[in-house]
Amino acid sequence: MKLTTVKEIYRERDKYLDQEITVGGWVRSVRDSKTFGFVVLHDGTYFETLQIVYHDTMDNFAEISKLNVGAAIIVKGTLVATPQAKQPFEIQAAEISVEGTSAPDYPLQKKRHSLEYLRTIIHLRSRTNTFQAVFRVRSLCAYAIHKFFQERGFVYVHTPLITGSDCEGAGEMFQVTTMDLNNIPTDDKGNIDYSQDFFGKETNLTVSGQLNCETFAQAFRNVYTFGPTFRAENSNTTRHAAEFWMIEPECAFADLEDNMNLAEAMLKYVIGYVLENAPEEMNFFNSFVDKGLLDRLNHVANSEFGRVTYTEAIELLEKNNDKFDYKVSWGCDLQTEHERYLTEQIFKKPIFVTDYPKEIKAFYMKANEDGKTVAAMDCLVPGIGEIIGGSQREDDYGKLKARMEELGLKEEDYDFYLDLRKYGSTRHSGFGLGFERCVMYLTGMGNIRDVIPFPRTVNNCDL
Amino acid sequence: MKLTTVKEIYRERDKYLDQEITVGGWVRSVRDSKTFGFVVLHDGTYFETLQIVYHDTMDNFAEISKLNVGAAIIVKGTLVATPQAKQPFEIQAAEISVEGTSAPDYPLQKKRHSLEYLRTIIHLRSRTNTFQAVFRVRSLCAYAIHKFFQERGFVYVHTPLITGSDCEGAGEMFQVTTMDLNNIPTDDKGNIDYSQDFFGKETNLTVSGQLNCETFAQAFRNVYTFGPTFRAENSNTTRHAAEFWMIEPECAFADLEDNMNLAEAMLKYVIGYVLENAPEEMNFFNSFVDKGLLDRLNHVANSEFGRVTYTEAIELLEKNNDKFDYKVSWGCDLQTEHERYLTEQIFKKPIFVTDYPKEIKAFYMKANEDGKTVAAMDCLVPGIGEIIGGSQREDDYGKLKARMEELGLKEEDYDFYLDLRKYGSTRHSGFGLGFERCVMYLTGMGNIRDVIPFPRTVNNCDL
Repeated sequence: MKLTTVKEIYRERDKYLDQEITVGGWVRSVRDSKTFGFVVLHDGTYFETLQIVYHDTMDNFAEISKLNVGAAIIVKGTLVATPQAKQPFEIQAAEISVEGTSAPDYPLQKKRHSLEYLRTIIHLRSRTNTFQAVFRVRSLCAYAIHKFFQERGFVYVHTPLITGSDCEGAGEMFQVTTMDLNNIPTDDKGNIDYSQDFFGKETNLTVSGQLNCETFAQAFRNVYTFGPTFRAENSNTTRHAAEFWMIEPECAFADLEDNMNLAEAMLKYVIGYVLENAPEEMNFFNSFVDKGLLDRLNHVANSEFGRVTYTEAIELLEKNNDKFDYKVSWGCDLQTEHERYLTEQIFKKPIFVTDYPKEIKAFYMKANEDGKTVAAMDCLVPGIGEIIGGSQREDDYGKLKARMEELGLKEEDYDFYLDLRKYGSTRHSGFGLGFERCVMYLTGMGNIRDVIPFPRTVNNCDL
Repeated sequence: MKLTTVKEIYRERDKYLDQEITVGGWVRSVRDSKTFGFVVLHDGTYFETLQIVYHDTMDNFAEISKLNVGAAIIVKGTLVATPQAKQPFEIQAAEISVEGTSAPDYPLQKKRHSLEYLRTIIHLRSRTNTFQAVFRVRSLCAYAIHKFFQERGFVYVHTPLITGSDCEGAGEMFQVTTMDLNNIPTDDKGNIDYSQDFFGKETNLTVSGQLNCETFAQAFRNVYTFGPTFRAENSNTTRHAAEFWMIEPECAFADLEDNMNLAEAMLKYVIGYVLENAPEEMNFFNSFVDKGLLDRLNHVANSEFGRVTYTEAIELLEKNNDKFDYKVSWGCDLQTEHERYLTEQIFKKPIFVTDYPKEIKAFYMKANEDGKTVAAMDCLVPGIGEIIGGSQREDDYGKLKARMEELGLKEEDYDFYLDLRKYGSTRHSGFGLGFERCVMYLTGMGNIRDVIPFPRTVNNCDL
């Protein structure tokens, strides 16, 4: 059915003023006096609501006046300007039809509900202002990322979810199986007989698409993956989910410098896109969720990101060791407190920390000439700490193989990966951006459960 | 590093002609005579190659002449027009540096390899013409889908991959677990103790995001999901994969007619986008993979799709029952042979078949007034048969509940779904498009294994 959206009305008001239009949406509130009443309507297309005025000249005046919050209605009427009122315009209704009533026990009432409570009614929470804003920004952010890469000619690769290999052993994995757990087939030695599982071998859910992406970068030069990844970590924090989305670009003929430039450009693009396309939602976050949000994002969008080596960063931090729970020294991994101190107190803007000790980074990162560090980079932003991690990859067959042996990785599991260094190897690099962390950063929301439509965490898999 | 791409050279040749530029890419072939030679270079950004001419004035003339197919090089030189030659221009090289050699056993030689063979070197096959074309079109197709929905204000919802429920029992599922399969915990009755599994209950990989999407449509009005889905079906065909991507829009205040209009507009948009943005690749498919492809796609893009009820379709097909392996009669499901006959022979264009018998469709589809059929629609296209399946959803609480009881579905598994009919229910509808089927349709590729970067099928989970 042809309905004019609230978004169209707000964005192109002159086109609709004094016209008869039809809108559809859900009741946020109803107020009536004896001869007329007001409905506040939300139609899901726009953050703001629309006021409807109706009169007792309507046959169903009483029915409308009794509507509960959440009811769905269709309104035919004339859009009129209301220069004296808080809202810019309203609809003078000629007809209102009830599409679906809302039962008296509707869990969302006009009062403010806690985020904790809303997590218990996950199928309804997206009807609230907060989650309207969060999930619209999430959608725009996802699209901005695609747009950024596609406009630059990157090829979007769907890396696989089910995998037979454990990329870099990044964490605990979920096993995927079709075997009957009540009756697991075994071989004559009593071991599980995976030849009888669906794929004929043990399989898990992916923790990263990077290695697959590298095979495509060596064919298409610039590629990215953007899909779900999984961690079976038993950590019940505000920042960990078992299922989350990740963006991983990978570029051939690109060194660490190119990699940082790409990451910086991408972050700025996404921030700009969301600020431009969701101004109402971003103002809402700035007013009600995170007071300094807009200033911080505008600052990031307009700063040139700083660059500092890990070694330099450690020197800077060591001078402030009295301020930290964990004292730093060369060789240690940076904790969030250190990352935030660097970006918030010392540099006062986003920074890249580069060239970490090889011991605390993954096997595939390119060895620097000092023999101690690798060409890694983490991007740290004020308010959150690390948001992106990446590296130039080791492109030398011999060095990569030696490093794998050093770490006890089985060569047969990485044949394909070594092949990339055997046939037309290029200097290449890439990074990973946790999508939910990015959405938290853009919205100021503090719990990852509140930026995922249907979050999966330990002991929680609703719907 | 700043490299000019082959795409930029082809698309903006005047900007680069007679300029000194630097390009990087992989060697497709080398031919040399005593004093000069030719390299055909492919850089992954564009379907066509670039010819490089080099001379023995270069110090490393011999090294270049000995390069194997697949080697990576960086070339500095001047782009010059070649009006007498097959290719429009070439690079007169001043310097060529070898980025990475290619070992003599490189599996991709200049000759044509079979698709079956290429499936055995899945990490390298994307370097061939065919897979360059397939995966670039796949990427563009994915982006076109996002663009279509985002431009229309749809909210992209990431529906969950791991799920505790089995939507519509659509097929066999993969189980997801962190339990030790060698030592599965049991309760005192000897049953598996899922309270000790990661989520505290039995979980599987999703077969559809539809029910989740419906919860968002009742909040945002127009939404879509685009993500991976899974089927653990033991079917080894050219059209089935265990892991594939699906697009599922869902719209509130939308009936079956709106649903068909949306599906038709989306297909036409995607076809148009791919034809416009990958003309070289589409010509390649038309010449080497599927001779009638471009005609067929242009025809679809410019046809008004036909519409016919299931009952009418059966009448039409019954007259031709002698042509079918499976004879049709009212009540039977349509097979691919019937679908193709309808769209190719009878209507000669894409059609929607609507209002199927309720017995062969899912429980959530809206009952028609005849008591026998439901407001379902399948979109059939020439050359492939069904490409989209959708329906208006049952929005009446009582009817939906009764139908669920009839089919023995447990109410407690669908509480959230019934709630949507209790609090502001709207007429609403949606559909599902199998993304890989769409890519097969756009490229003419005949095997789903050849349109998925890393396909997962029975006994096959490489990389």
